[in-house]
Amino acid sequence: MIFKEIIKKKRDGETLTEDEIREAVIRYTKGDIPDYQMAALLMATFFRGMTNEETLYLTDSMLKSGETININCNGTIVDKHSTGGIGDKVSLIIAPVLAEMGFKAVLLSGRALGFTGGTADKLESTGMKVTLSKEEIEKVTEKFGFSISCQTDEIAPADRKIYALRDATSTVESIPLIVSSILSKKLAVNTEAIVFDVKVGSGAFMKTMEMAQALAKGLVNVSRLYGKKAGALITDMNQPLGRTAGNAIEVIESLNAISGDISGDLLEVVTSLVGVLYEITDSGNFKEGKEKAEEIILSGKATNRFTEWIEYLGGTTEPEISKKRLLVKSPEEGYITAIDGEKLGFLIIEMGGGRKKAGEKIDHSVGLRFFKKIGDYVKKGEPIGEIIYNNGDAKSFETSFLKAFTFGKEKVNVNIIKNRI
Amino acid sequence: MIFKEIIKKKRDGETLTEDEIREAVIRYTKGDIPDYQMAALLMATFFRGMTNEETLYLTDSMLKSGETININCNGTIVDKHSTGGIGDKVSLIIAPVLAEMGFKAVLLSGRALGFTGGTADKLESTGMKVTLSKEEIEKVTEKFGFSISCQTDEIAPADRKIYALRDATSTVESIPLIVSSILSKKLAVNTEAIVFDVKVGSGAFMKTMEMAQALAKGLVNVSRLYGKKAGALITDMNQPLGRTAGNAIEVIESLNAISGDISGDLLEVVTSLVGVLYEITDSGNFKEGKEKAEEIILSGKATNRFTEWIEYLGGTTEPEISKKRLLVKSPEEGYITAIDGEKLGFLIIEMGGGRKKAGEKIDHSVGLRFFKKIGDYVKKGEPIGEIIYNNGDAKSFETSFLKAFTFGKEKVNVNIIKNRI
Repeated sequence: MIFKEIIKKKRDGETLTEDEIREAVIRYTKGDIPDYQMAALLMATFFRGMTNEETLYLTDSMLKSGETININCNGTIVDKHSTGGIGDKVSLIIAPVLAEMGFKAVLLSGRALGFTGGTADKLESTGMKVTLSKEEIEKVTEKFGFSISCQTDEIAPADRKIYALRDATSTVESIPLIVSSILSKKLAVNTEAIVFDVKVGSGAFMKTMEMAQALAKGLVNVSRLYGKKAGALITDMNQPLGRTAGNAIEVIESLNAISGDISGDLLEVVTSLVGVLYEITDSGNFKEGKEKAEEIILSGKATNRFTEWIEYLGGTTEPEISKKRLLVKSPEEGYITAIDGEKLGFLIIEMGGGRKKAGEKIDHSVGLRFFKKIGDYVKKGEPIGEIIYNNGDAKSFETSFLKAFTFGKEKVNVNIIKNRI
Repeated sequence: MIFKEIIKKKRDGETLTEDEIREAVIRYTKGDIPDYQMAALLMATFFRGMTNEETLYLTDSMLKSGETININCNGTIVDKHSTGGIGDKVSLIIAPVLAEMGFKAVLLSGRALGFTGGTADKLESTGMKVTLSKEEIEKVTEKFGFSISCQTDEIAPADRKIYALRDATSTVESIPLIVSSILSKKLAVNTEAIVFDVKVGSGAFMKTMEMAQALAKGLVNVSRLYGKKAGALITDMNQPLGRTAGNAIEVIESLNAISGDISGDLLEVVTSLVGVLYEITDSGNFKEGKEKAEEIILSGKATNRFTEWIEYLGGTTEPEISKKRLLVKSPEEGYITAIDGEKLGFLIIEMGGGRKKAGEKIDHSVGLRFFKKIGDYVKKGEPIGEIIYNNGDAKSFETSFLKAFTFGKEKVNVNIIKNRI
């Protein structure tokens, strides 16, 4: 196989064969194909796209470059994946709820990178162990009905190598490349069903519905081609999800949420995702699954399962929150019409609660609280949020916080669930 | 400048600034920007193209990576550049003809690579010196009114580095990249006017009129933006030009041609190119220039100038042609409707008369003769050409030769001059 002919084929809009894609990934991972040739192929793919079949072969060959995790347990193994947003603590709530409903929820999560947070970082604020071996995942899943742990380096190393190259060559924003990157890790676990929470809006990677639709369809179609049950919701990320954003503070919000003290948007997202999983696993219809989840959350039935799980893995249910606080007051009167999540995400990084580079340490004790959200009417001087910080200039944090808010005269309504794929 | 932002800009169809392009070339040539990032930028450029201004900046920064050649002489310095074809000995004839008309023709030419030949290789079959210093070029131009020499490594090294990367990443076939590659070398000489002979057809790099038009326009427009007088002809390369293809044999054909024994297509191309130069240098109109050239060629006026020039540089006007010959006879009766130059080019390489890789030695004594061309009617068994070979299997050469020919019942006419830009 002459690799530049493969590049030319993709460049000219032809479909690559399974053999061509597999050989490309294998040889690139081995170092047989130089970065510059792979970079050219990635850019050609950015422009020409990939069929679902090509994406499947790419996914599978990246997946096979590493370990697969075969969890041994009784019950239907399910997973939930989010494409990342601000204040997204859905994993922490949905996993114990699914367990309460009889599923085995096995989630592998990543760390904060870019402007969005990572579930593994949030959990680490409790001091609990988040890196688990296959045997530990099995033991924890058996005991609690769910497991959330950090995805290890043994999974899909080819994806890591290709992702680093994409990052350096401005080829990240390609739907088939995003789909294969996500799925090469997700499909490495013997999950029966996966629901994807594709975020759209200012605080998400996908800024437009068109991009979000394409990504959701890609994730669902390729998962199904691989033989998994799959579904997706496109959910709003034009403001942070729930009432807080940060690390320890999101764990606290999650503990409250699972005990019934939950904001409307967060409840809607969690229960709708459960509804999708309920339906695609043939457990019942969407509405039944959603109602069951709602009943569990509002009655607080899964609370002990969640707190005991944290404690079992060495964590505390009262993670430390910084004592330094600054109340942010509305600079004007009117309706809140937009809250830019990306700006808030960068503010959290600025405060030390996120990462500029992979591997950096995080200050788990800082974060943001939101008292008011889109559609709320506020008077001038009325508190709209709180900045919880440790080091740095509180005034400049306040300026950044307020830059994320837009006020207007007309009330704006938010539909949190945008679409189902 | 964060280079991946430059890649993203081009990827998203924006226009790069002069500073961005210059910095990219300078830093890439220094090794500051890795190959994989340049490869991504080249592929994005393949898809998005470049404006004439962007192409100019790219050309000029590649040009400035090396030496420029400032020829000191009396008279109007002109140049002719061909995009490459089979049997293209135009440079050998046009240069002494232009000198005869009072121009100073200073041509820098390349070597055979890919399926097309190189003027420098053809001249080397005479044993003459083809690599000249600036001072030697000046001396020869002063004495003979023209100079044809081999372009040196000191000219546009950035182009050489970028071209090698394009070759490895399937990003050669991009009009602005081709234009800037050609012009970074052409514009390094203080020529006043350049005429481009853009070849189109089976024996050229540009297979379609659309591509050839785009290339011709790019070459002319960017040269003019640079401050040169420029024009272009698109000429037919759906069959070899003239009666021979090879090295020594093309020198012999050129010696005959300049003495008046010239095939119709070759005469038309040479004189038309002179016509364009005549007009763009304000020496007179196209027709006048063309007629003057015709008169010089058919009367043999420039013959001595040409032979003395070869001898002055140490060459012979009777370069050695191999004695092993095979007459090729027509396998059928009918009109010749096509002669695939690319196939013949690869046959010449096969026989040792061209290069598979840069730097390879060439057998100057082999080549092909064409007795019949498109539009000619042949009987079965009638000789249509001759294979002049040294080593290898004559039968297999004959098979390849015949594969290049197509016969039909309808007479096909060829317009050698397709268009003027």
